[in-house]
Amino acid sequence: MRMFDIIKDKRDKKELTKEQIEFFIKGYVNGEVTDYQASALCMAIYFNGMTTEETTALTLAVRDSGEILDFSNIKGLRVDKHSTGGVGDKTSLIVAPIVASYGVKIAKMSGRGLGHTGGTIDKLESIPGFNTSLEKSEFERIVNETGIAIVGQSGELAPADKKLYALRDVTATVDSMPLIASSIMGKKLAANDDCIVLDVKTGSGSFMKTIEDSKALAKIMVDIGKNAGKKMLALITDMDIPLGNAIGNALEVKEAIQTLKGEGPADLTEVCIELAANMLYLAEKGEKQECYEMAKKAIENRSALDTFAKMVEAQGGSKEHILNPELFEKAKYEYAVKAPIEGFISSVDTEGYGTASLLLGAGRNVKEDVIDFSAGIILSAKVGDYVKKGDLIATLYASNEDKFIASAKKLLESTRICETKPEKRPLILARVE
Amino acid sequence: MRMFDIIKDKRDKKELTKEQIEFFIKGYVNGEVTDYQASALCMAIYFNGMTTEETTALTLAVRDSGEILDFSNIKGLRVDKHSTGGVGDKTSLIVAPIVASYGVKIAKMSGRGLGHTGGTIDKLESIPGFNTSLEKSEFERIVNETGIAIVGQSGELAPADKKLYALRDVTATVDSMPLIASSIMGKKLAANDDCIVLDVKTGSGSFMKTIEDSKALAKIMVDIGKNAGKKMLALITDMDIPLGNAIGNALEVKEAIQTLKGEGPADLTEVCIELAANMLYLAEKGEKQECYEMAKKAIENRSALDTFAKMVEAQGGSKEHILNPELFEKAKYEYAVKAPIEGFISSVDTEGYGTASLLLGAGRNVKEDVIDFSAGIILSAKVGDYVKKGDLIATLYASNEDKFIASAKKLLESTRICETKPEKRPLILARVE
Repeated sequence: MRMFDIIKDKRDKKELTKEQIEFFIKGYVNGEVTDYQASALCMAIYFNGMTTEETTALTLAVRDSGEILDFSNIKGLRVDKHSTGGVGDKTSLIVAPIVASYGVKIAKMSGRGLGHTGGTIDKLESIPGFNTSLEKSEFERIVNETGIAIVGQSGELAPADKKLYALRDVTATVDSMPLIASSIMGKKLAANDDCIVLDVKTGSGSFMKTIEDSKALAKIMVDIGKNAGKKMLALITDMDIPLGNAIGNALEVKEAIQTLKGEGPADLTEVCIELAANMLYLAEKGEKQECYEMAKKAIENRSALDTFAKMVEAQGGSKEHILNPELFEKAKYEYAVKAPIEGFISSVDTEGYGTASLLLGAGRNVKEDVIDFSAGIILSAKVGDYVKKGDLIATLYASNEDKFIASAKKLLESTRICETKPEKRPLILARVE
Repeated sequence: MRMFDIIKDKRDKKELTKEQIEFFIKGYVNGEVTDYQASALCMAIYFNGMTTEETTALTLAVRDSGEILDFSNIKGLRVDKHSTGGVGDKTSLIVAPIVASYGVKIAKMSGRGLGHTGGTIDKLESIPGFNTSLEKSEFERIVNETGIAIVGQSGELAPADKKLYALRDVTATVDSMPLIASSIMGKKLAANDDCIVLDVKTGSGSFMKTIEDSKALAKIMVDIGKNAGKKMLALITDMDIPLGNAIGNALEVKEAIQTLKGEGPADLTEVCIELAANMLYLAEKGEKQECYEMAKKAIENRSALDTFAKMVEAQGGSKEHILNPELFEKAKYEYAVKAPIEGFISSVDTEGYGTASLLLGAGRNVKEDVIDFSAGIILSAKVGDYVKKGDLIATLYASNEDKFIASAKKLLESTRICETKPEKRPLILARVE
């Protein structure tokens, strides 16, 4: 078998065999297939696509390129939720405790943030003492006892994906549906949870610009997961609105706690209940409507907040901060961003918001950067709101004043204000199972 | 400027600017643009093509990636002919002396053969004493005095093409019209002759499978050359029939001498006269019909043979061998390949014929291989001929008998014999100017 023929076959719209796809992935990981052949193949896949069979074979080859996690020591069904990127996405912090409060296991290995997106691990580390690097046995013990633990990803799941994604990122071959699907699902299948709810973002800032494309991507991933023996479903959610008002690590944790108390922003609460309900449904906790009520109830009776506090305590974090969020360290400086003109906020560029937050110190430009946990943004006006000139749009928080001007500029550039009220879009656009 | 955006623009069907194309080629030659980005771009070009403006910019960037030859010391118009590959193509050996015999200058720098195609330089080196590496001043002196000299390419013309072609060759991006056109014309413009006749091969074994595609390729190259100030035209010729009967270095030189005496195979003679006539026409030696008569006359009155002999003598080769080709060393062994069934030879795979010859020692697998000048094939039956079972199809020549079986097998595999007489195709299929 030669990589040349694999590239040529895909270029000529032939369906690749499972053997060809495995040859490519194995060879790419061990260095026998070069970057330049891999990038040529990715570009041919970009143009000619892949059948479901090819995408499945690619996903399994990516999964099998490294370790597949074994959580047989954890009792009960393990459920996970995966979002296809998003700025200010603190849903994991809310959804996971809701689900775990009903005895469904959450054994989550999460990544750190890079660029304009934040990572769940970074958010949790803003809680003093919280330990995100546990021994496997300790991790399993906490999950068995409290129902939930969240740690940083150790070792390397699906190393083929890491190498291939880095290549796609510099060769304009990221936004190909089969390549996105196999990248996400390859990693998810290696993480090896029993049930997976996918949160597929759609909109102008996302890989998938239209609901139809997002549904198609979701359908491929759901089918691949099912074929691999997983319980799967996907929600298509709105990418173009940041959920909640907070962007930045400690700010988001505080907003998550507020939401777990039933006092969170409406949009964030709605999406979290929907995600949690679907996770409970996949874990066979009841019919759809029942699960929806269960999710709401876990917030009303504070059992989800209680579960979250138990997890924080079990992982060495300060439970006091969860019970009294005023204890979180505040940023030294703040800065008010005001509306430059009057009108409706018609749309925002969520990536731009992420970058504005990054500039304040809330994220990493390169992976060695140290995060300022207290830095970030609280939005006072969101899509659909009417603002007068001079009204507060957002407050910026940082440990020094250097970057306020640049951050405010980026935030305003990313906020479109115009005369007509934008049409209201539902947050949950579709459900694919 | 970023290579990423150049790849993305081409992927998204945007027209690249001259600046973007120059950035790519310069960066690729100096190592700032990586192989994996170059291959992704080539694949995007494969799918989305290039406008004439883009192809022209790419050609000029390739030309300018290295030295542009300066032959201002040579008096009179310099004419060249370029073939887009071909097995057993000894036309240069015949056409060049015909044209030079009328005072048109041939200052040819030619390549060595690799794989199934032979190189003109290798063929000439089968003449004892023939020196293909002359100092530039000596080369110019011989061209000025005898009208013609043929040497090996020294230095590196269009190094971007060499690097890019090697990459395209392993990433299934060779057969893209703008990439082929810029590769050929980039080198030709660096060689800097005044007039260029292109021999664009068409047929199943060629890059361009149809006459329409071949004409389109020819038209792009002719236009690019004209825009760069060259006199240009192209002939579309049949790729699927090896010209003449000889394949292999000394065997081809002997056939060329035979043809220069007016005793060569009809197909080879016809194509050579056509090519020579068009070269004379471009060099303004007369109207088309006149040039056609001139080319025939140079064979009839032996002036072309005389010019060839003078060149051989001037370059240190044995003139005796030209005047008496029986002097060429003969292969030690020969082997008769016979028709396995009765019928018409309906088509042949010329590449397969090239490989059969390579197996006998007439070519190089890798560039370090030493060529056996006496090795090769003489065809006794060609496309359109009727053969009975056991009739001689070809004679194989080699210095040892090891490879006869494998070579004969390859030759027979590459020869289709069937009941119906194939339709006769003209050798010259079109002319583009």
